[in-house]
Amino acid sequence: MKANTNPAKGMRDITPQEKEVRDYVEGVIVSTYKQSGFELIETPVVENIENLIGSKGGENLKLIFKILKRGEKLDFTKDISEDDLADLGLRYDLTVPLSRFYCNNKANLPSVFKALQVGNVFRAERAQKGRYRSFKQCDIDIIGDGTKAAELELIATTAKALTALGVNDFVVRFNDRRVLKAVILNCGFTEEEFDGVCIVVDKLDKVGMEGVEKELLGKCYNTESVENLMKALKNINENGTECLLEYGVSENVVNEVKEILEISREYANGNYDIEFDFTLIRGMGYYTGSIFEIAYKNLGYSIAGGGRYDEMVGNFIGEKIPAIGFSIGFERLVNQLMDEKFKVPNKEKVVLLFESEDKYIEVMKKADEIREMGYTVSIFEKAKKLGKQLNQFSEYGFNKFAVYSKDETEIKDLASN
Amino acid sequence: MKANTNPAKGMRDITPQEKEVRDYVEGVIVSTYKQSGFELIETPVVENIENLIGSKGGENLKLIFKILKRGEKLDFTKDISEDDLADLGLRYDLTVPLSRFYCNNKANLPSVFKALQVGNVFRAERAQKGRYRSFKQCDIDIIGDGTKAAELELIATTAKALTALGVNDFVVRFNDRRVLKAVILNCGFTEEEFDGVCIVVDKLDKVGMEGVEKELLGKCYNTESVENLMKALKNINENGTECLLEYGVSENVVNEVKEILEISREYANGNYDIEFDFTLIRGMGYYTGSIFEIAYKNLGYSIAGGGRYDEMVGNFIGEKIPAIGFSIGFERLVNQLMDEKFKVPNKEKVVLLFESEDKYIEVMKKADEIREMGYTVSIFEKAKKLGKQLNQFSEYGFNKFAVYSKDETEIKDLASN
Repeated sequence: MKANTNPAKGMRDITPQEKEVRDYVEGVIVSTYKQSGFELIETPVVENIENLIGSKGGENLKLIFKILKRGEKLDFTKDISEDDLADLGLRYDLTVPLSRFYCNNKANLPSVFKALQVGNVFRAERAQKGRYRSFKQCDIDIIGDGTKAAELELIATTAKALTALGVNDFVVRFNDRRVLKAVILNCGFTEEEFDGVCIVVDKLDKVGMEGVEKELLGKCYNTESVENLMKALKNINENGTECLLEYGVSENVVNEVKEILEISREYANGNYDIEFDFTLIRGMGYYTGSIFEIAYKNLGYSIAGGGRYDEMVGNFIGEKIPAIGFSIGFERLVNQLMDEKFKVPNKEKVVLLFESEDKYIEVMKKADEIREMGYTVSIFEKAKKLGKQLNQFSEYGFNKFAVYSKDETEIKDLASN
Repeated sequence: MKANTNPAKGMRDITPQEKEVRDYVEGVIVSTYKQSGFELIETPVVENIENLIGSKGGENLKLIFKILKRGEKLDFTKDISEDDLADLGLRYDLTVPLSRFYCNNKANLPSVFKALQVGNVFRAERAQKGRYRSFKQCDIDIIGDGTKAAELELIATTAKALTALGVNDFVVRFNDRRVLKAVILNCGFTEEEFDGVCIVVDKLDKVGMEGVEKELLGKCYNTESVENLMKALKNINENGTECLLEYGVSENVVNEVKEILEISREYANGNYDIEFDFTLIRGMGYYTGSIFEIAYKNLGYSIAGGGRYDEMVGNFIGEKIPAIGFSIGFERLVNQLMDEKFKVPNKEKVVLLFESEDKYIEVMKKADEIREMGYTVSIFEKAKKLGKQLNQFSEYGFNKFAVYSKDETEIKDLASN
């Protein structure tokens, strides 16, 4: 009769203790973002499957959870492929739903729309420790602003949210897809080879220069192009944005990148760092301009990432509207904070104990009285072994207790017991 | 090139204005529940399909969104039915996931666990105005307490949350599945007929006594049983719990029902009403004892509902553990509040306008200055037609504006413009 009581593979139950930390972190992020003028919206976790599949989401498109058609629409005589059988899917990010949302609600939104979204996204990743199939993202996006003001605001505001949580000394890594493209083509690679070359360059921090060269040659790219690229990587690594013009990157783009770095650095005022990193790639195929990440300590992964996706809205409604977003990887951030023994500011939680002969209505009224004093009060029946019971409540996060009495119900510290 | 930008059928986009109301309402409910000692947990929206299908969810089981198996597990040569093709599903309520959660985390939870859950559930209902396929529920549950204290606390706390939102003069309708069963069997119906008879009795408030009698006779139930039931309905309607003993309802059950009604009524103190209603059925097959709903104005549907499900945890782990829950239908409540022109307490939202020749870093710093004064500040580029732009911002919920100036940036009322 026993059933499997585990959550579905890659999914998680959040216990009260964990939930308290998560809600606190989410609250700080959301209130920082709201105070900076970003407006909370909500999109459904379920989207029409064609909007997901047609979204240039890179590798994520292979990880979509697809939902079976229902009723008469499900026809086993005709639907013989995976795509025939599904009409809906779970979102794999918040950016695709936001773009659809913007197009659907454009008439009622400001011409420059600053959106804030917090929600779970779903990817059928291979099960792995610390990698979940359902995870929370906190995104801010600016739709309708093609100027560098958008980049500056997203970077400053995301940094502000992290700082508010006591996360400091992080590094914002910055790059631009247009820079990547110009340099890689300038080295002799073709348009078609671009994505493949990016995937290899992305591994530079793991496999080093030699590893990248070896892998590129192993994939049979033109030897001269590979040689050019290795020289370019070395040059850009040493000289930064200064040498980009040599590789045919347009002056406009170089100036924009320089200005964003410069102003962001001035605004950061030494609290965090911003660096140009030509080896930053970001997997999503929908990015069109600047791309950025936040690296924290030696985590081996970023705790936030984003970029410009100036063509996604256009793909929905044919009208080109610039857009840019920055997403905090909530699970990674919370895990990191919990590893650092992060504590939620303490609250007064009282357990009010009663005995079965007490008049229950009086116990309820007493609890309300204590609540009106500002305490959180939970009512429980007193156990025979009071000491043991109190120890348990202490473990569950209570810090006060009171035993109901008609005459005087005294609130005592749990620890002192 | 234009795509469908509507949300998937029955799903909804939540705009900033709506989101603000929803978050306020959710905040009031959650803080009321937390102050009363209920602990927030989170369960995944995706569950293993067998846990959903085996859950006695009544009609809801027909409405489950099923998720296609992935990769090698999806085998079209073998999987030829809907059930073969799916291994996961979207939850249709929060009660089934809570029970699974409790079993999975029992070792780390108090013996009486007071849970609070807020989340979306999914049902593939026929599309209809005001009926969504994804909707939010706010549930409180008590697991491990088989006494009437649990009923009393759930009813009192749910009523408190509604009252905190200014919802008053509602009626708690109360019944017990054991009463229903005893009376219906006592009238001559069989165990097998019980569920079918309940479905007809449930319609009494819509079709009246005659309608119920006609439908029961039309379904070819034994004429004498139907006649007995009609007499019982009339008797119970007139005499309430007083006459239940006549129909073989056990004295224990009658006393418990009476006590719950009496104490709840005393606690309510005239702010809301509690009444025994034998025609209250509640569709879920998993209810085992008391069932209850909150009716508000002449809405034709309840805004909250719940009951005892003492066997669900046992179905997971073989150990019988009592459980009871009360769920607020968040969408219905919010719709009703919005119909009543509910207003979120006002906030100070400033739009800070800059011109392209302004130094952007200074604009950012000025915004931070104003934020430190407690305002929400959103930065936008000044349009040529300032008056028109300010009117738009007023529509989007801003109530102040300021035009950036190096020397003095004055905050003005938007309305006064």
